[in-house]
Amino acid sequence: MKLQKKIKGLKKFKSKLYKKDFLLTWEKSEEDLQMVLEVAEILKQLRDENISPKVFDSGLAVSIFRDKSTRTRFSYASAANLLGLEVQDMDEEKSQIAHGETVRETANMISFLTDFIGIRDDMFLGEGNKYMREVGEALDEGYENGVLPNRPGIVNLQCDMDHPTQSMADLLHLKNEYGSLDKLKGKKLVMSWAYSPSYGKPLSVPQGIIALMSRFGMDIELAYPEGYELIPEIVEIAKKNAKKSGGTFKISHSMKDAVKDADIVYPKSWAPFHIMEERTELLKKGDKEGLDNLEQRCLAENSKFKDWEYNDDKMKSTKKGKALYMHCLPADISGVSCKEGEVADNTFEQFRLKTYHEAGYKPYIIAAMMFTNQFKNPAKTLRKILEAKNTRKGL
Amino acid sequence: MKLQKKIKGLKKFKSKLYKKDFLLTWEKSEEDLQMVLEVAEILKQLRDENISPKVFDSGLAVSIFRDKSTRTRFSYASAANLLGLEVQDMDEEKSQIAHGETVRETANMISFLTDFIGIRDDMFLGEGNKYMREVGEALDEGYENGVLPNRPGIVNLQCDMDHPTQSMADLLHLKNEYGSLDKLKGKKLVMSWAYSPSYGKPLSVPQGIIALMSRFGMDIELAYPEGYELIPEIVEIAKKNAKKSGGTFKISHSMKDAVKDADIVYPKSWAPFHIMEERTELLKKGDKEGLDNLEQRCLAENSKFKDWEYNDDKMKSTKKGKALYMHCLPADISGVSCKEGEVADNTFEQFRLKTYHEAGYKPYIIAAMMFTNQFKNPAKTLRKILEAKNTRKGL
Amino acid sequence: MKLQKKIKGLKKFKSKLYKKDFLLTWEKSEEDLQMVLEVAEILKQLRDENISPKVFDSGLAVSIFRDKSTRTRFSYASAANLLGLEVQDMDEEKSQIAHGETVRETANMISFLTDFIGIRDDMFLGEGNKYMREVGEALDEGYENGVLPNRPGIVNLQCDMDHPTQSMADLLHLKNEYGSLDKLKGKKLVMSWAYSPSYGKPLSVPQGIIALMSRFGMDIELAYPEGYELIPEIVEIAKKNAKKSGGTFKISHSMKDAVKDADIVYPKSWAPFHIMEERTELLKKGDKEGLDNLEQRCLAENSKFKDWEYNDDKMKSTKKGKALYMHCLPADISGVSCKEGEVADNTFEQFRLKTYHEAGYKPYIIAAMMFTNQFKNPAKTLRKILEAKNTRKGL
Repeated sequence: MKLQKKIKGLKKFKSKLYKKDFLLTWEKSEEDLQMVLEVAEILKQLRDENISPKVFDSGLAVSIFRDKSTRTRFSYASAANLLGLEVQDMDEEKSQIAHGETVRETANMISFLTDFIGIRDDMFLGEGNKYMREVGEALDEGYENGVLPNRPGIVNLQCDMDHPTQSMADLLHLKNEYGSLDKLKGKKLVMSWAYSPSYGKPLSVPQGIIALMSRFGMDIELAYPEGYELIPEIVEIAKKNAKKSGGTFKISHSMKDAVKDADIVYPKSWAPFHIMEERTELLKKGDKEGLDNLEQRCLAENSKFKDWEYNDDKMKSTKKGKALYMHCLPADISGVSCKEGEVADNTFEQFRLKTYHEAGYKPYIIAAMMFTNQFKNPAKTLRKILEAKNTRKGL
Repeated sequence: MKLQKKIKGLKKFKSKLYKKDFLLTWEKSEEDLQMVLEVAEILKQLRDENISPKVFDSGLAVSIFRDKSTRTRFSYASAANLLGLEVQDMDEEKSQIAHGETVRETANMISFLTDFIGIRDDMFLGEGNKYMREVGEALDEGYENGVLPNRPGIVNLQCDMDHPTQSMADLLHLKNEYGSLDKLKGKKLVMSWAYSPSYGKPLSVPQGIIALMSRFGMDIELAYPEGYELIPEIVEIAKKNAKKSGGTFKISHSMKDAVKDADIVYPKSWAPFHIMEERTELLKKGDKEGLDNLEQRCLAENSKFKDWEYNDDKMKSTKKGKALYMHCLPADISGVSCKEGEVADNTFEQFRLKTYHEAGYKPYIIAAMMFTNQFKNPAKTLRKILEAKNTRKGL
Repeated sequence: MKLQKKIKGLKKFKSKLYKKDFLLTWEKSEEDLQMVLEVAEILKQLRDENISPKVFDSGLAVSIFRDKSTRTRFSYASAANLLGLEVQDMDEEKSQIAHGETVRETANMISFLTDFIGIRDDMFLGEGNKYMREVGEALDEGYENGVLPNRPGIVNLQCDMDHPTQSMADLLHLKNEYGSLDKLKGKKLVMSWAYSPSYGKPLSVPQGIIALMSRFGMDIELAYPEGYELIPEIVEIAKKNAKKSGGTFKISHSMKDAVKDADIVYPKSWAPFHIMEERTELLKKGDKEGLDNLEQRCLAENSKFKDWEYNDDKMKSTKKGKALYMHCLPADISGVSCKEGEVADNTFEQFRLKTYHEAGYKPYIIAAMMFTNQFKNPAKTLRKILEAKNTRKGL
């Protein structure tokens, strides 16, 4: 009943997700985003009610991870498996990519019976998202010329610009915390840089957060020590989004001041934009000494901002002293995973289970991205799933 | 018919396996053990009769291997696949465990759509089993707080204390060799240390064997060169089990004498308990030189006991000269896999295919552990499988 | 209708593929080969028409890759997945093969619930194919003695002698390019050595091509610089095949001359037979210095034949100036993947998409090899698939 109603409700979204890769949230309309959120919730509820939403009888979901990953890797695998696809890891060391194969060729070679390619490529500024588009163009060519029986969808599992499966999971978390997207209006969300003993953390999470959350009428404050800029073009997008959605967008340079009266705080370390540019050049050249020097320099610089730790003191100044703490995990927790880090132990502990819930949306967000990419009329297919009533577990 | 009868027969076992992890055989009642054996046999027969016991339409079975493995890895994968789950390897080098994530968090992050986590962690004395329980507690917390839609079961794929999938497969082998568990009463089983040119083999197999087989009225003799002790607490458990089950338990120090009149012999190398303690400390410290020294010392010590090889001479003195030879494989076979080893080539050869049969029960034991962990009334679910009559192969 | 007719047409082939491994094309009858081609086309058409040919409800397809691979790895995974099997990679570094296990034992240990073992072993001359047969004998023994419930089939994913999944995919490509196998009669196919800046490329592709294509009445010309011989016994097979099929077989020593009036050209680098023998000995000994010396010597030798590049100039002299260019991919493309290579950039570009189509047959060839190995009456099983009309995608 409830599910039927939810599925019926999908009709109101004029989304254009079919056969379009989900690479950047800011390329998607609000209706697209809402469709993904709703389908994610429906898929979750289906599974919770032990109804299997398996819509593929066979097919591969290829994954290409150019950086370490636990949660995104398992989220992708879970999503693929839920819909009936088998994950095949494209291990570039084992494969002949190492032999100098072109992207164009490889993209086709791994796609003859493939429905999705999930890619994480977040190390090289200016490269990750570009690479995904290159793969996409190769798949277009292959499909148009009859090489591929269908055009596999691409899922951006984190690039240099955005981390859409993360930010969309975060948005779904907020929707559930506050009851609806509408209720996010006027809420103050602080995306703040935080101290970490490591350096070189990708920019995609803070960028993804400000570019997405600014679309729902929130008051976004981006706080970082001077010099720790994000990619300027993406900050511009956030500014425009905020204006359009009736919210605000502000940059400031003190975590302590920024979190005052905040409803939501997202304290997370990242490396400054210009450092990532420098680092990308060094990585490309394979200049190990240069990389070591850069790391030393950055760590020294970072260490000036150890007071950028989110803790109970700072929390006290947030709205009613209990702003919702968010993190993409793993967080650098002072005294737990490092000596001094992004967040104090006892502060994190109060929100630990909430961050797990936050993470738990990701498999369903990915599944929804897949679902809406491959099924033209998601409501119709979901209705069929509901009617078929195949059990997920048991007979 | 026969299957229907077998399934009906399950009713007599008041087992408490549902939602309980199978971590140590000595935590399980005899009825629990018999239930697992029976379900394993039923699942095997179903597949042999081309009936698919697939009870999951989707879901992951995560595996965490902290030590090398072929047979257990494939057994786990086969069991999961038979029931409809997809194996996802948690490669700690690829994942962010390497980044200092806590067990508590990771356990939840990999479990949002996961039904089982299989863990092998046998290298560090005092750690492996403890780690599994930590994972279990994290999953309990996640489940109780709504992070996880269900509590994934944990399968102990070998720890520092026990190797329950191995010992249970061995028990099923014995049951089939002798016709019933009852017929094991009064049989003499010798678990004997044997010489191997390597060192540091885990204690979990001999410990698992004496702790489990002592529950069925057998006369267990544990033989090893003085100094090659197992964990004392587990030896105590075996003693008590033997007493309770109407069998005997004895420790002796000559393979030659021990195997006299034996019905069953299990000659296998292991490292002494106190050496494993020493080794664990060195491993924790990453003391490579210390580890090398320890290895040299142990190999020198081992080499005093090259006559602890099981061979035709020794076999002649067993019951009717043909005691059942058992091994978890791979055995160190003299002249085959090493110069001098645990067993003589021609002796092994007489029992080689039997050891393959022995190993062949493991996938079904694991599947039965999974089945009884996730289905409250195994008989009912098995009956449904029988009625559905889905073919495993063909249409 | 069309599918029904195609399936009906299978009746005319008296093939003997059931329960026989597909290790070398020259061990198979023409009817066997035609059966595989036809079944491959039917499976492809089924999937293209969104009918799922899943015939296994569970089961493993083990893969053992002893050399790098992208396209064959994904082809094998796709084929297995299409039929309902889950790929399990046998990573010899992770497994206990590294511990000195014998092939005989391991083959059984990984096969208790396994339906196929796909093997790539192309590095050691005289070893790869032999290894596959050893695995096969071990499986026979296990099956005959009740260790294994069924005899898993072996798929040769490239050995030292043949690369049957490649050559059969190539043959299916030719069949589709020309309309039928009959139309291949009298066509001139040139299998030519080509320059590459690397050395040590396996012989299995050129050997597989001449041994297979010579069976269909084509005029085969094998061209290579003097000294770059293939395994003599296989060249003899090609000669005999050509004679029997009404074609011709010729060896020559100039790519430029050979391609004149060719209908089909297959320019590809390989290492001379005697060098591969030398290399095999050095690899076995682990003689790194010897291997380096050999590489230097060979590269110097190769560099004398940089004019063995296929390019527009050479293409002009082929039949109507537009011979069909073939390659197993990845090709060494001059100015793209290397400075000077097997084929000129613009020449390759004209046939690039055709080579993708060529590669696209491989998953279906592998699936057809699996299908005919495990189903006695492929037509009957295919008919059932057609009747069941399970959708591959969607409900």
